[in-house]
Amino acid sequence: MHTDLVAALDIGGTKIAGGLVDGHGRILVRAQRATPAREDGETVMRAVEEVLGELAASPLWGRAAAVGIGSAGPVDASAGTVSPVNVPGWRDYPLVARVRAAAGDLPVELIGDGVAITAAEHWQGAARGHDNALCMVVSTGVGGGLVLGGRLHPGPTGNAGHIGHISVDLDGDPCPCGSRGCVERIASGPNIARRALDDGWRPGPDGDTSAAAVAAAARAGDPVAVASFERAARALAAGIAATATLVEIDIAVIGGGVGKAGEVLFGPLRRALADYATLSFVQRLTVTPARMGTDAGLVGAASAALARTPGVTAAGV
Amino acid sequence: MHTDLVAALDIGGTKIAGGLVDGHGRILVRAQRATPAREDGETVMRAVEEVLGELAASPLWGRAAAVGIGSAGPVDASAGTVSPVNVPGWRDYPLVARVRAAAGDLPVELIGDGVAITAAEHWQGAARGHDNALCMVVSTGVGGGLVLGGRLHPGPTGNAGHIGHISVDLDGDPCPCGSRGCVERIASGPNIARRALDDGWRPGPDGDTSAAAVAAAARAGDPVAVASFERAARALAAGIAATATLVEIDIAVIGGGVGKAGEVLFGPLRRALADYATLSFVQRLTVTPARMGTDAGLVGAASAALARTPGVTAAGV
Repeated sequence: MHTDLVAALDIGGTKIAGGLVDGHGRILVRAQRATPAREDGETVMRAVEEVLGELAASPLWGRAAAVGIGSAGPVDASAGTVSPVNVPGWRDYPLVARVRAAAGDLPVELIGDGVAITAAEHWQGAARGHDNALCMVVSTGVGGGLVLGGRLHPGPTGNAGHIGHISVDLDGDPCPCGSRGCVERIASGPNIARRALDDGWRPGPDGDTSAAAVAAAARAGDPVAVASFERAARALAAGIAATATLVEIDIAVIGGGVGKAGEVLFGPLRRALADYATLSFVQRLTVTPARMGTDAGLVGAASAALARTPGVTAAGV
Repeated sequence: MHTDLVAALDIGGTKIAGGLVDGHGRILVRAQRATPAREDGETVMRAVEEVLGELAASPLWGRAAAVGIGSAGPVDASAGTVSPVNVPGWRDYPLVARVRAAAGDLPVELIGDGVAITAAEHWQGAARGHDNALCMVVSTGVGGGLVLGGRLHPGPTGNAGHIGHISVDLDGDPCPCGSRGCVERIASGPNIARRALDDGWRPGPDGDTSAAAVAAAARAGDPVAVASFERAARALAAGIAATATLVEIDIAVIGGGVGKAGEVLFGPLRRALADYATLSFVQRLTVTPARMGTDAGLVGAASAALARTPGVTAAGV
């Protein structure tokens, strides 16, 4: 049997998406289930097995050489387990072994969801052609991943690039992770909205208090909304500059809902980056919006599987 | 001619050290000059050439296959130039080309001094056997380097691991680098001493206001001295935790004068690390004092040259 495809799974707190993906990143077959995130671990696993079963029912399944998984974190790629914050039924859950059993013993590659999105942006998106890149998702949380020396850098456990939980304000507000002043604690969508509300911003008649509503108010000139995005931009800039100073990246790609805010975010972010990225070797650092859409996690999981599968090549990598 | 050695240069603001080094890291021949740091660039280069000339006069010189340079930064390994902060006569100075010319056209490998010390600690010191490590020098400044996936990670320009200039306090005090709240601005020796003095600590009859004197006072129980080291420890912990969260290191090695302060530093540092390194995949992170002595820069520069020299192998790497 000619094996020129991989199966990919994108496992989040809301949905479990699956696909059969070719070496160009084209998703030839799709399957999806809602994540029963509040149920016990076996119930969540059954949803994963249903997605895999639907893929396996395709006549193309026999061409799949491996399975790539991008999962909400933390993950432990070395142990093959996951403990997604938003899926309490899975703690050190042996996802790799269970997926391998459900997928006819195909080899399985596990990475965190931030790493998966990075793989996709590097393969086909805004980080393409960049050998040293940080890709971020700024939305309900703040995640990320790294490309170093031309290759994905998942780290030993698949969690590298976790920029949302580096402290940029060592005396700052406590973060749910247990630390203080984390990038996520200042720059995530809910924190942008909370800070605007705390400082006196009020939603319109629709009562929408999302970060997107704050972004709209900022675009209309509301000074409190502008200030909340500026504060988020400073935290993101400090985190991005720290990353560049530590590992020498030349581009930071920002996706997720907050990443779609446009110049309300990117204007102050570029200015703040000039304040924090000061050493000669990081001054050429640029920030840019993500280009991959909602399939980024799936395409990235596929590319990680392709990278580890001899004989199947990701075109254009 | 059998080539089983490399020449190494360790170029700092105070001294220029050179050596002929074998595959076990043994320094077989040494030469040294004071750095004429306040003179013009050509005068500084002449001191380098004198060191090389002394090495070349050795009967062992013919066995040297390459030259490794660890230089005070910033460096630009891709351009082959250096711009050490403390050597104003060298700005984008073409050190690699000049050393190659002075060394009979041997291949030349340039890395930053923090990266060089990291190479040495990974080869023969406290990071030996660790595939993912941060090595730091905490003294007049704060520098560092990274080992990722078992290999030195100098980055494209040779400056990666520059932990002294990541901001851990985005609203903090201005740093000479242009940013704010940098690790170095809080944790370097001069800043530890300055903070203790500002807060009311007074030196003994010898008038010694160095960080070492503050450390001695802290060991004797002076609460202001203790507090200044605790503040430095928090900044170091936030920076080390950020590095681990971004690239998954499992050990941080701390050398330099402040690193020699012992439990006055390492006690609060271990406690603060538990506060900032909270995610599951960084909780096993340990901190430990450096083991290499004053030859670390020379041995590390040699190991970088050995790593790029086919046919000459660093034993035990």
